[in-house]
Amino acid sequence: MNVNGKPMRTIWTSGNDVEILDQTELPHELVVRKLRSLDDVAHAIRTMQVRGAPLIGATAAYGVWLAARADPSDGALEAATRTLLATRPTAVNLRWALDAMSAALRPLRPADRAGAARASADRIAEDDVAVNRAIGQHALALLRPLGQRRPGDARLNVLTHCNAGWLATVDHGTALAGVYAAHDAGLPVHVWVDETRPRNQGAALTAWELGQHGVPHTVIVDNAGGHLMQRGQVDLVIVGTDRTTATGDVVNKVGTYLKALAARDCGVPFYVAAPSSSIDWTLEDGRQIEIEERGAAEVTTIAGRADDGAQVRVRLTPDGAPAANPAFDLTPARLVSGLITERGVAAATREGLAALFPDAPRAGRA
Amino acid sequence: MNVNGKPMRTIWTSGNDVEILDQTELPHELVVRKLRSLDDVAHAIRTMQVRGAPLIGATAAYGVWLAARADPSDGALEAATRTLLATRPTAVNLRWALDAMSAALRPLRPADRAGAARASADRIAEDDVAVNRAIGQHALALLRPLGQRRPGDARLNVLTHCNAGWLATVDHGTALAGVYAAHDAGLPVHVWVDETRPRNQGAALTAWELGQHGVPHTVIVDNAGGHLMQRGQVDLVIVGTDRTTATGDVVNKVGTYLKALAARDCGVPFYVAAPSSSIDWTLEDGRQIEIEERGAAEVTTIAGRADDGAQVRVRLTPDGAPAANPAFDLTPARLVSGLITERGVAAATREGLAALFPDAPRAGRA
Repeated sequence: MNVNGKPMRTIWTSGNDVEILDQTELPHELVVRKLRSLDDVAHAIRTMQVRGAPLIGATAAYGVWLAARADPSDGALEAATRTLLATRPTAVNLRWALDAMSAALRPLRPADRAGAARASADRIAEDDVAVNRAIGQHALALLRPLGQRRPGDARLNVLTHCNAGWLATVDHGTALAGVYAAHDAGLPVHVWVDETRPRNQGAALTAWELGQHGVPHTVIVDNAGGHLMQRGQVDLVIVGTDRTTATGDVVNKVGTYLKALAARDCGVPFYVAAPSSSIDWTLEDGRQIEIEERGAAEVTTIAGRADDGAQVRVRLTPDGAPAANPAFDLTPARLVSGLITERGVAAATREGLAALFPDAPRAGRA
Repeated sequence: MNVNGKPMRTIWTSGNDVEILDQTELPHELVVRKLRSLDDVAHAIRTMQVRGAPLIGATAAYGVWLAARADPSDGALEAATRTLLATRPTAVNLRWALDAMSAALRPLRPADRAGAARASADRIAEDDVAVNRAIGQHALALLRPLGQRRPGDARLNVLTHCNAGWLATVDHGTALAGVYAAHDAGLPVHVWVDETRPRNQGAALTAWELGQHGVPHTVIVDNAGGHLMQRGQVDLVIVGTDRTTATGDVVNKVGTYLKALAARDCGVPFYVAAPSSSIDWTLEDGRQIEIEERGAAEVTTIAGRADDGAQVRVRLTPDGAPAANPAFDLTPARLVSGLITERGVAAATREGLAALFPDAPRAGRA
């Protein structure tokens, strides 16, 4: 999507280096970092310079390329895979991308591996872009009739939570792919951006990427979305998903469930952009998914830019106040209007998903 | 309630002065300010050194006392009333307290007014304490059986939103009055404290007052409460109310509606502490209540304490990102398990409220 009027991705190659947009500096600074080695890549993933499941997978794939260039032996590639896996142990796409790289490289002679690794990493990145572009077209088909139903030139209001935009992927995003497609097609789309405490991915990342691409948007605190839905100011909710069960339960950033409840209560459609890579075909019930508990400091403190331009972390709570920080919550399938996949929109049911993915592994025989 | 082990109120008289706890310095500093004049009082209300509907009313009453001491003439008292009314134009209790003071003083000779004003202001403050103490006893009757039903010494988990504690009143609080009563009665009560963006009254004020009184509590982001209810970690929700209709609809801090929806979905009782002064007997439908839209800077920036101890305000969003800031939302009566008033717990219906308040003015003949 556009930054300063020019198309940009979150990761790309430049000669023999990998370059990334450093997301820890956003929204206040636009910093491009060169990754020249496996260690650079591991550091970038670990410190969340890159984040978002699809982007982490693509970045790790390029990490294998950089490792193979330095040493294409079996031992070196196995060590590289272990190093990369340890950066974000719970990221599903990380393991998937590393498995794909190993499968592609292991049969080859060491001398052929570096070139093949680059081609495989490029393919993983391009596949992500293609999946997201397809999700965007299916979401556009949902948005277009809503836009046409509106009187005069009124806005088409989408609410989103967290960041499932192009910054979480290689390009386009998942939840925001449809927003970009609608905006580029001339629909008067406007996005309510949930701040998304505690890490503020909405206020920092979603607001930044929408602003750079020129999509009208308004930042709100996480508490405000229910009120906006009550007052008829939200036409559609679209969020991403970290993990989706074979039955359509959705585990996504904490707070998603509250927005799904409000959407149901107010008659607002609630869609989840779910690339098939997010679907865990072995899971029948979202309650089986363990919810990560993150550090209390994310709740008790917050970082932002002071008047002098410096990034400052400030304390919000009394000294010593305890805090809890569950990172995700479960939105039961019954609250989901549909799952927007790269193959189309599926009902959030086992049958709905199976109809679009008859080739998917089934629980019990995965 | 206790501060540093000693009982404290939010406002008191000391000789010929009024003293307050400056809430803009909390939770990081405990600062007591002397108010010596009408101007001091108006400044304290305007800058939110005191906040919370009941406390604003009591503070304004003491402002009339300080004004009457300086000049007890009709003209001076009318001017003082106008000055105080303008400090927070939408505060219902402010007008109510000023009307009560005028009614008490106008019939008197100017020479008698200062003494009578002090007595009237004291009575308004003591009445608030008595109302809140009664709400606390009725809430305790709800909490006690929940506490006894729990296995072993497990905690009794209450979730609250915003600050409806003693800092919002003269003492005891409304939503937290029952928590203090339960804690003081030896029940193992623990409070989940919603941060309450954008102004963070939960993280700053509720966490501080519970901590000072020794009540176990844990701060969470506003997004987390639904997840905790899904996992059975909330036994009861108790919140305050800014305005309650005669039919039991509740307008309270934005985000309250989302917690009410989650409580309903998870089978958790959702109670509202509603002193009768919060009930607008002329209103039939909460949707008639206009929701205040506050400044965008409350969303785009946040204040906290930096490592060097200084209070710093930092920017959270990209430069120029637009923000919206509705301050309240509507929780429909159908989501409210009961209204805890000073006369007992009422069903959130016209009939439920009328049974407890047969003497209340009725809509259409107010």
